[in-house]
Amino acid sequence: MTPTLHDIRMAAQRIKPYAHRTPVLTNASLNQQVGAQVFLKCENLQKVGAFKFRGACNAVYSLSDAEAARGVCTHSSGNHAAALALAARMRGIPAYIVMPSNAPSVKKNAVAGYGGLITFCEPTLEARESTLDRIRIETGASVVHPYNDERVISGQGTAALELLEDVPDLDVIIAPVGGGGLLSGTSIAATEFKKGMRVIAGEPEMADDAFRSMQAGEIIPSVNPKTIADGLLTSLGALTFPIIQQRVEQIVTVSEAGIIASMKFVWERAKIIIEPSSAVAVGVLWEKKIDLRGLKVGIILSGGNVDLEKLPW
Amino acid sequence: MTPTLHDIRMAAQRIKPYAHRTPVLTNASLNQQVGAQVFLKCENLQKVGAFKFRGACNAVYSLSDAEAARGVCTHSSGNHAAALALAARMRGIPAYIVMPSNAPSVKKNAVAGYGGLITFCEPTLEARESTLDRIRIETGASVVHPYNDERVISGQGTAALELLEDVPDLDVIIAPVGGGGLLSGTSIAATEFKKGMRVIAGEPEMADDAFRSMQAGEIIPSVNPKTIADGLLTSLGALTFPIIQQRVEQIVTVSEAGIIASMKFVWERAKIIIEPSSAVAVGVLWEKKIDLRGLKVGIILSGGNVDLEKLPW
Repeated sequence: MTPTLHDIRMAAQRIKPYAHRTPVLTNASLNQQVGAQVFLKCENLQKVGAFKFRGACNAVYSLSDAEAARGVCTHSSGNHAAALALAARMRGIPAYIVMPSNAPSVKKNAVAGYGGLITFCEPTLEARESTLDRIRIETGASVVHPYNDERVISGQGTAALELLEDVPDLDVIIAPVGGGGLLSGTSIAATEFKKGMRVIAGEPEMADDAFRSMQAGEIIPSVNPKTIADGLLTSLGALTFPIIQQRVEQIVTVSEAGIIASMKFVWERAKIIIEPSSAVAVGVLWEKKIDLRGLKVGIILSGGNVDLEKLPW
Repeated sequence: MTPTLHDIRMAAQRIKPYAHRTPVLTNASLNQQVGAQVFLKCENLQKVGAFKFRGACNAVYSLSDAEAARGVCTHSSGNHAAALALAARMRGIPAYIVMPSNAPSVKKNAVAGYGGLITFCEPTLEARESTLDRIRIETGASVVHPYNDERVISGQGTAALELLEDVPDLDVIIAPVGGGGLLSGTSIAATEFKKGMRVIAGEPEMADDAFRSMQAGEIIPSVNPKTIADGLLTSLGALTFPIIQQRVEQIVTVSEAGIIASMKFVWERAKIIIEPSSAVAVGVLWEKKIDLRGLKVGIILSGGNVDLEKLPW
């Protein structure tokens, strides 16, 4: 069942004791630079440094006690794994995380630091899925997919809901798109909260599967995409694509140079640390491929997990 | 006249239309690391990236229309100059800024970007003061000192006032100390808002004039201090010192290594950009020279102006 605004409101209640209500920041320099009135919803300041905590937390706390006791599991090497591990630890249940053996040690450490029980596998999708399947059967744990999951989509939608509660008269909301969990949740929250609300997605030019899928009317997965926005490498899912087709006005692609320039500008002027995937949403305004002059624009800054030793400037 | 809590409340009303009400952030990793419950008052997210805007704005909007028409002036190469320029631009009056000819171009550009009218002089205190005096006489502009000014102290105190409105049951507030404007405003707000509220200052070991002045019972200026916390190079003033003597429990010195480690930890975990001077306040908890275990500790993060090309790690 496609999530509704009611599901998102329920998710907001469910995660309220555990998640941060993140601030909405404004910045005069950014407004001047892009020619719009920008409201930054700071999911980089969310627990685990990413919006992913919202969806994972909603999934974990949606389980019955009997289900929860058997734990949760997923395969992921990124923010979703860390988010699921933390949400599970909060509920006092195990989180089984399948990670490719070649995942960066910083990501392994993050998941382990939140108490996730890691199983390493060969770095192929087949190995990841078969390993996850085995763990699921052995433990009875509930699978929580990073984006193709109604509970996750509802959880991710709570960021836009909070943003609209704080700034009800927005004209547009921009979110980045990878697998589409954040974008589909955002688009449901926005278009149901206020009829006619525009939702636009930012996507790296170098990983433009959502852009091409919207053009084609069917899911066209990315093949080995390479972009600095490493949170947006995944392709749309069967659950997220139809929601996005129905509710998102357009996908705007952003160049690598535009991602880096937007990221640095936000660091320098707004004094917050955003990861390249967040900068993709800012990049939609930055590159001015579409005309949003003078509008009130909400931007979901998806996360802030960056290796400070390897900055792109 | 020493400012009172009433003056600070008036300042808060006066600057409200112009300044950000900055968020108060919490971070579980930081709490665990330092063993206290920490509330970060994010003046790094203030306009011009520093608390300095509060004091400058209060001074500018305290002027009568006749005074204001003649403008404001100061000598400063740092955040205060940028803050005064912006506040003056908001009121539509000139800001005359005396800067040493060898000031970094990034600082010159910041002040010029906010519309400040810069006069360069030789890089000596004598040249700065005589140049400022000449401009004051020529223009009739009001001098706004960076910290030794009641209006400035009252403005700086509004950050602590907001923090206490948001988190009334704090046990301690920690602020960094340079010239003492922020610290004296903070200490008035805190100790008058709630009797018995503890106020502690963080100061770089390498620029420990406030520490030594408190020991000696008289102002002992720093001589050529060298610390990464370049916002804290100035020494206490005649107005700030007695307030600090009366209301601040103690000055805790922080090593350069502690400043850098605290700064990096906040960037990595809290995802906000703080400058070394802010990290000095965090460093008081980080280095654990004094026992604040289990307490609710408010920290004034003073600013976030950092050259992203020259990070200390």
